[in-house]
Amino acid sequence: MPGPRPGGSTQGCGGPCAALALKSIDYETIPINLVKDGGQQFSEEFQALNPMKQVPALKIDGITIGQSLAIIEYLEETRPTPQLLPQDPKKRAYVRMISDLITGGIQPLQNLSVLKQVGQENQLTWAQKAITSGFNALEQILQSTAGRYCVGDEVSMADLCLVPQVANAERFKVDLMPYPTISRINKTLLALEAFQVSHPCRQPDTPPELRA
Amino acid sequence: MPGPRPGGSTQGCGGPCAALALKSIDYETIPINLVKDGGQQFSEEFQALNPMKQVPALKIDGITIGQSLAIIEYLEETRPTPQLLPQDPKKRAYVRMISDLITGGIQPLQNLSVLKQVGQENQLTWAQKAITSGFNALEQILQSTAGRYCVGDEVSMADLCLVPQVANAERFKVDLMPYPTISRINKTLLALEAFQVSHPCRQPDTPPELRA
Repeated sequence: MPGPRPGGSTQGCGGPCAALALKSIDYETIPINLVKDGGQQFSEEFQALNPMKQVPALKIDGITIGQSLAIIEYLEETRPTPQLLPQDPKKRAYVRMISDLITGGIQPLQNLSVLKQVGQENQLTWAQKAITSGFNALEQILQSTAGRYCVGDEVSMADLCLVPQVANAERFKVDLMPYPTISRINKTLLALEAFQVSHPCRQPDTPPELRA
Repeated sequence: MPGPRPGGSTQGCGGPCAALALKSIDYETIPINLVKDGGQQFSEEFQALNPMKQVPALKIDGITIGQSLAIIEYLEETRPTPQLLPQDPKKRAYVRMISDLITGGIQPLQNLSVLKQVGQENQLTWAQKAITSGFNALEQILQSTAGRYCVGDEVSMADLCLVPQVANAERFKVDLMPYPTISRINKTLLALEAFQVSHPCRQPDTPPELRA
């Protein structure tokens, strides 16, 4: 059986890579440089793996899965330990709502291809607006769902989405003072090994200037 | 027990409303006009329901869930008949990948708040680019996953995402000729009653000029 082998990368792989680490699943990373050669995600080879031309993509059990949350849900269903979704359906709904808010409501608006379209001089303002608008909502939601982590006291898929998004916020110099709950949970998560090894600044192909 | 009661609306509610219809769940719609009064989704009342200030939001079983896929997954876990996710984990992964591609990779780039930022004269080009780029990937994926519907021969969450996105494509005058699989599945789905009652053009608050 071929092992999991994500054609994943740096900025894009935070969530799924942390899931693989938490579940102790061994995998091979194929770094995709989103800038070099006009973006290696546009190569024919990568496009055959993931038509969306986006990272990450996971090749596992004979299939290739694109989209971070679809990857994490598949890992959860086929390798359930430790759980990344709570047992209680209502808590599961909160986890998915937060995950969707981040990966569908914030991340797509500040990804590389959108920022290219926006033009260099408007990029920072555009990204900051997308992130603060999403974080305003997220902070309010977390105030009623969070315990030690995003939903209660167990690490969940929502936490896997939070950490790379906060890293992006820092990259775009978003002031995190108005988001005490987001900041507190992020700090607590970063103390866990799975989040350290999968953090964008630690990926094998991270440029030296972005490394921790 | 309070019944499901989505504070849902028009353009935003296609997927979850079709899920409610397919599962024969009775509900009350509170139309939110995204344009009138500067956007009713920004009202304090709606913001308390959904901090993301986006439609749809579903109030059900004592909790409020925002984000379309989180709503559908909750309905699936608590009201499993008829199934909107296949049994096989690999097929479930395909359903989620397609759903995430549409709701996370296409829809957020052409929603109302983004188009406002882009400015009126660039809106059409911007929306068309987001949709064609996503549809190019989607068409390629569907060619290997589709049967009668997006994944195999059973209606799934992916189909619930497809129909409103094709409606958006038509609204933005995207040429659908290059997407025979998308078009064929959309047409097949529109013959089903659940998709007719939940179609954007049939919502109670749809302006007359957009009605079928």
